Amino acid sequence: MLEHEIKIPASPAKSYRTEIGSGLLGGLWPRIEADFNGYNKFVVTDENLVSAGHLEKLLGQSDAPAFVISPPGEASKNIDTAVTIIETMEKACLGRDTLVVALGGGTVGDIAGFAAAVFKRGVPVIQIPTTTVAQADSAVGGKTGIDSSLSKNAFGAFWHPSAVYIDVATLTTLDDRQFRAGLVESFKHALIADSEYFEYLENNLDAVLERKSEVLEKVAQFNCKIKGDVVETDPYEQNKRRILNYGHTIGHAVETASGFELLHGEAVAIGIIAAGMIEIELKIAPKDRLERVRQILEKLDVPVKLPPNLAEKDLIDLIKHDKKAVNKWPRFVLLNDIGQVYCPDGQYAVDVAPEILGRVLKIL
Amino acid sequence: MLEHEIKIPASPAKSYRTEIGSGLLGGLWPRIEADFNGYNKFVVTDENLVSAGHLEKLLGQSDAPAFVISPPGEASKNIDTAVTIIETMEKACLGRDTLVVALGGGTVGDIAGFAAAVFKRGVPVIQIPTTTVAQADSAVGGKTGIDSSLSKNAFGAFWHPSAVYIDVATLTTLDDRQFRAGLVESFKHALIADSEYFEYLENNLDAVLERKSEVLEKVAQFNCKIKGDVVETDPYEQNKRRILNYGHTIGHAVETASGFELLHGEAVAIGIIAAGMIEIELKIAPKDRLERVRQILEKLDVPVKLPPNLAEKDLIDLIKHDKKAVNKWPRFVLLNDIGQVYCPDGQYAVDVAPEILGRVLKIL
Repeated sequence: MLEHEIKIPASPAKSYRTEIGSGLLGGLWPRIEADFNGYNKFVVTDENLVSAGHLEKLLGQSDAPAFVISPPGEASKNIDTAVTIIETMEKACLGRDTLVVALGGGTVGDIAGFAAAVFKRGVPVIQIPTTTVAQADSAVGGKTGIDSSLSKNAFGAFWHPSAVYIDVATLTTLDDRQFRAGLVESFKHALIADSEYFEYLENNLDAVLERKSEVLEKVAQFNCKIKGDVVETDPYEQNKRRILNYGHTIGHAVETASGFELLHGEAVAIGIIAAGMIEIELKIAPKDRLERVRQILEKLDVPVKLPPNLAEKDLIDLIKHDKKAVNKWPRFVLLNDIGQVYCPDGQYAVDVAPEILGRVLKIL
Repeated sequence: MLEHEIKIPASPAKSYRTEIGSGLLGGLWPRIEADFNGYNKFVVTDENLVSAGHLEKLLGQSDAPAFVISPPGEASKNIDTAVTIIETMEKACLGRDTLVVALGGGTVGDIAGFAAAVFKRGVPVIQIPTTTVAQADSAVGGKTGIDSSLSKNAFGAFWHPSAVYIDVATLTTLDDRQFRAGLVESFKHALIADSEYFEYLENNLDAVLERKSEVLEKVAQFNCKIKGDVVETDPYEQNKRRILNYGHTIGHAVETASGFELLHGEAVAIGIIAAGMIEIELKIAPKDRLERVRQILEKLDVPVKLPPNLAEKDLIDLIKHDKKAVNKWPRFVLLNDIGQVYCPDGQYAVDVAPEILGRVLKIL
């Protein structure tokens, strides 16, 4: 038997800029043209962005091709949409010197990012998130995903963006329920990483809900810093990045069990309350911390209790199928203080006995 | 405007082993189980491998799940097959701790590699190539691809395998035309990188065509060394890897223009002759070199002339749409000696005037 070893060298470090401002969409295109000179641009967006006037504002006089996803939202986050986008790029004779520009919420960012990751083995993408959830979370970090007929994000790739532009003015056109639910991810960032940010949210929640631009910019900055720090430490989700999953293990199960009637952020809000209850069961948190958390979530007007039609057994089954489960039971991210993840023996996620989870789901 | 820079650290270097032997398929599975302990295995193969008995030989007593692509070949290299594979993995409750095992020719390796690259944002794959073209070329190097309805490999990813196992005994069941056409990639390796290998092929071609295992092992070893060296230098095709494209710019056009009546290696053989003619036109090669090349290709019994039904104009159009074209005209990889790529000013691919290409296509 003969052997030959093939050594793939380290890929070099790289970095990308996140820019945050109010109203930056208007003057952005000429800067994208200059910063990504030599690339053909291809915009991916959805109908909501067109009707809100954001696509027109971005493109200005440019005649760059744009693909408009229809209908907007999770219903289009499937492989057919990705195939249609890629074949549209091929028909436009676009090659490897193409820059995909994702303008929209988390779904647009996910679909466009995935299409960029696999188009002719990968072309760069920039993200222009326009919702609270995308600005706080999904636009930064390089995760892309497409649903299969069986589960969310069954197809995906890690594909870091080449730049992220956050215009908080785009949030003013977002409907109220989406706006509030998306803020749950900001709140989660504060919980896992920054007690100062948590206090800022407690003290400025009215201004956030009034969508005051200077406060939204500050929130975006906190989010980029926290998410960015985690992504820098663990860009491919092998360890520390799991802390971003706080509230998500139960949250994902609740979201799926609701048949996606609940928005992602709404389900995560319930998951955050459940995590707080587990922390009390495990005696790693004083009870008043959960009350402080609940107060903010109630002010956000997102659910803090399980909808009565969700069966505990279904939730347990879904949790067993969690993407991160090993031997059919996931580990849970928990807090030992606001701004600080519970991390015994250097583990960011810990075992929680099914009985404890059962008790929590009964009172949730 | 606020800014925040996100730094993605370098990914660490990694390496993988290629093992070459005759008859190693039989004892391989227990070793895969040991080397990839902790992973659930999922085999992707096609009907040809089942009927040749290779799947049974690989699996032995194991009941690992296997997906059998049907029909075999390029007709199945589409997104529907990839989706079906991924949903089959989901239905089997497989998670991120899955190892995809690709057993087959280039198409199987491409589909399985792509499915592994995008399943839940990427799981490892090992390649067990069973054809001359896959053993010489596609199994090593990490390129994966799926055709769209418009073009070859429109979807793809760079996804380096975790190991490659080459059993030259699997070549004994390959039909003669496939066997011979696949050898063109071996021959190309010799041309671009190793005059000693070229001489070895000249001197041992009868034994190669008789499929003598010790000679096939030696050929596989030359191939892994040459392809491996290029991949190590340029794992993501940014520069030197282009030399692997020798004969392929015209070859791809010929393959497409033939409506895929010609096998890939057959079309590349014609492309290699065309490249040799361009070298004569550019006066970078003595005429007798092309004759030496032609002699081997004729002995391989692959085409060395354009089929009469292919129009020169169609070929030029296809060449303009080459994946690597910039401003609608690709650069060509050429040789200045056997085993040595013509590399003026450090460029591995050079401009060739359309008039020169026109003259060559007329006499080809």
